[in-house]
Amino acid sequence: MLVVKKFGGTSVANKERIFNVAKRCIEDYKKGNQVVVVLSAMGKQTDVLLDMAKDINPKASRRELDMLLTTGEQTSVALMAMAMDSLGVPAVSLNAFQVAMHTTADYGNARLKKIDTERIKFELDNRRIVVITGFQGISKYDDLTTLGRGGSDTTAVALAAALHADACEIYTDVDGVFTADPRVVSNARKLDEITYDEMLELASLGAGVLHNRSVEMAKKYGVQLVVRSSLNTTEGTVVKEESKMEKMLVSGVATDKNVAQIAVEGLENKPGVAFKLFQHLANHQVNVDMILQSVEHGGTQDICFTVTEDMSDVAMETLKRHADTSLKCEKMAIVKDVAKVSVVGAGMMSNPGVAAKMFEALYDAGVNIRQISTSEIRVTVLIDQKYTEVAAQAVHDAFALEK
Amino acid sequence: MLVVKKFGGTSVANKERIFNVAKRCIEDYKKGNQVVVVLSAMGKQTDVLLDMAKDINPKASRRELDMLLTTGEQTSVALMAMAMDSLGVPAVSLNAFQVAMHTTADYGNARLKKIDTERIKFELDNRRIVVITGFQGISKYDDLTTLGRGGSDTTAVALAAALHADACEIYTDVDGVFTADPRVVSNARKLDEITYDEMLELASLGAGVLHNRSVEMAKKYGVQLVVRSSLNTTEGTVVKEESKMEKMLVSGVATDKNVAQIAVEGLENKPGVAFKLFQHLANHQVNVDMILQSVEHGGTQDICFTVTEDMSDVAMETLKRHADTSLKCEKMAIVKDVAKVSVVGAGMMSNPGVAAKMFEALYDAGVNIRQISTSEIRVTVLIDQKYTEVAAQAVHDAFALEK
Repeated sequence: MLVVKKFGGTSVANKERIFNVAKRCIEDYKKGNQVVVVLSAMGKQTDVLLDMAKDINPKASRRELDMLLTTGEQTSVALMAMAMDSLGVPAVSLNAFQVAMHTTADYGNARLKKIDTERIKFELDNRRIVVITGFQGISKYDDLTTLGRGGSDTTAVALAAALHADACEIYTDVDGVFTADPRVVSNARKLDEITYDEMLELASLGAGVLHNRSVEMAKKYGVQLVVRSSLNTTEGTVVKEESKMEKMLVSGVATDKNVAQIAVEGLENKPGVAFKLFQHLANHQVNVDMILQSVEHGGTQDICFTVTEDMSDVAMETLKRHADTSLKCEKMAIVKDVAKVSVVGAGMMSNPGVAAKMFEALYDAGVNIRQISTSEIRVTVLIDQKYTEVAAQAVHDAFALEK
Repeated sequence: MLVVKKFGGTSVANKERIFNVAKRCIEDYKKGNQVVVVLSAMGKQTDVLLDMAKDINPKASRRELDMLLTTGEQTSVALMAMAMDSLGVPAVSLNAFQVAMHTTADYGNARLKKIDTERIKFELDNRRIVVITGFQGISKYDDLTTLGRGGSDTTAVALAAALHADACEIYTDVDGVFTADPRVVSNARKLDEITYDEMLELASLGAGVLHNRSVEMAKKYGVQLVVRSSLNTTEGTVVKEESKMEKMLVSGVATDKNVAQIAVEGLENKPGVAFKLFQHLANHQVNVDMILQSVEHGGTQDICFTVTEDMSDVAMETLKRHADTSLKCEKMAIVKDVAKVSVVGAGMMSNPGVAAKMFEALYDAGVNIRQISTSEIRVTVLIDQKYTEVAAQAVHDAFALEK
């Protein structure tokens, strides 16, 4: 069996943890498995390097930043191979050049294009554990690139796909994917299984267990993922295509407090106004999430939307700068103390009652809904932030997710 | 003009120094020159990484050590390119993979085989300063290698040779090559010129300004070196083939306290005994320097030799282990408080009076000579360590090197 195992920066933050990971991988190796390990940079090393760069040049080019950041993973893989060696198991570390991890040239946010597996297979055939730098690649110009935060998950999935691995295990500091954030909903339950689509909705809602692109890639190449804890041996959550078992109506409840609502009232109701508004925001790298456009009243209309809270000031400044020229309106307002609460479930596609049940639960709990958005397998409501926990618990209870 | 400039770890140890180096390189660039910069790892970073490795696995493989150590130079070149960029000059950093710095696979002590210049020339043609990792290379297996301590000098010379550079400047923390160590001989004088051969003798005598292999390579490819200070703009010392000017009888006096003398007395005088003795030492990586073999007396002979002091205990243990079997002798003794004092000069080849003049100066200064060795352009004496400074000054005076 060929297994790809990915460990994040926290799991290799110091000597003790490096040896824990080494032992865990060696257990697998001693069962006769071929083991590929993908690592992130140690602890907060990426942030340390970013700070060094910022100190030298706050506007450093992404190309040079990637040249700097990629030293982080190279350090962890070399130390890991040394640790495994010292435990008597042959190991070899490989960086993006050695694997030939081809990516686009979008420094800081590159996408994997192709992975050569020759060297990895050679090392595996020689019964070595292969320890590979996550997060990094090389462009067609032979320059180092990085895949963006959380990119090591994507590296692991891509390697699993390229090597036709039998398993791809993503180790993290939680036991798996839960029906809700256990810090928010006390009786949240670990899921045994979840579909790629559900995981994608949860990841984009900020559940933060898996990097979104890694799930997309896993879905595309049919790589079955396991999310599990690096701290204990609990079975994790399997992420895969829909199983034959009855589809879960709702798999989980997600909450997200990093959100702000912006209302633009009394906009001229003429073609192109909404386009201009969102164009201005896009020009300033502001991603817009839930959008609500009112029906016309008296020749004007209102547009309401959400952005992440950390981009909300940029968004407001941008809009105000254009308020007198291209964006004539009566009023602009921002509310920061809001939160999103979502239910996600592959089963809701064929069951129209989910939204109604969610709204009922919120009503019963006295939570007012400010805005609604839905996808095929998700219903999201925007509420006052102070009700986040109450709302999540109420919805969790309504769908009996603890069972 | 194409210039290769090499700066050591001290010169890039912090932000301020990085910017000093950046400005220095930019001055050259703004004169219209093409500038290639070779850097070592920042400050004591190589030692920091070695300590990390030691903590994980004291017997870490050289292959993994090199994987770890090479992150050091990659960090400095990325930061340097960022610094240059922030000063408004386009720069690009390149590591051993990107340059394609081919070496042997002798991890930790690899030798450069071939350098691809395509990428460097492309960047230079685009008017960028090219900042290259010193000390490192890649083997035919695509593994990272290091060239051994001081290897960045060799990288710089090799690049200068491959690029047919007009100048190769080695920046250091002293003003150039001196007639003697200024800390030992107060009126030591900076040399304007020195030949490759003299520099080689001085380097191997521990003068420590240039890495020996870099001088060998410079001689082989006719790369004219300049050794100069990174702290000021003093003209440095040019290292080159003999000039047309009159050969210096003596260029400098070198001292070396890292030495111990071992005497093996009453050895059987039969063929193969000396061979066995030095074979045992070679098997334990002990390099032997000055060797003195006595004439036979009463069927036995004595052998006296020097080793570096840090290897002297290993040498003695090795010899004692074989004293009863293959190395029958009457007595083994070691003296650690000795030192070597040497005079070096390309002119002495054609002038036999140098040794005599040196011995006379030492006699006048009351310094006893324990052992003598010579090469074509060098005379070395072994003396009691406490007389090192007295001897160096006496010899320096005798040849009027201060003038």
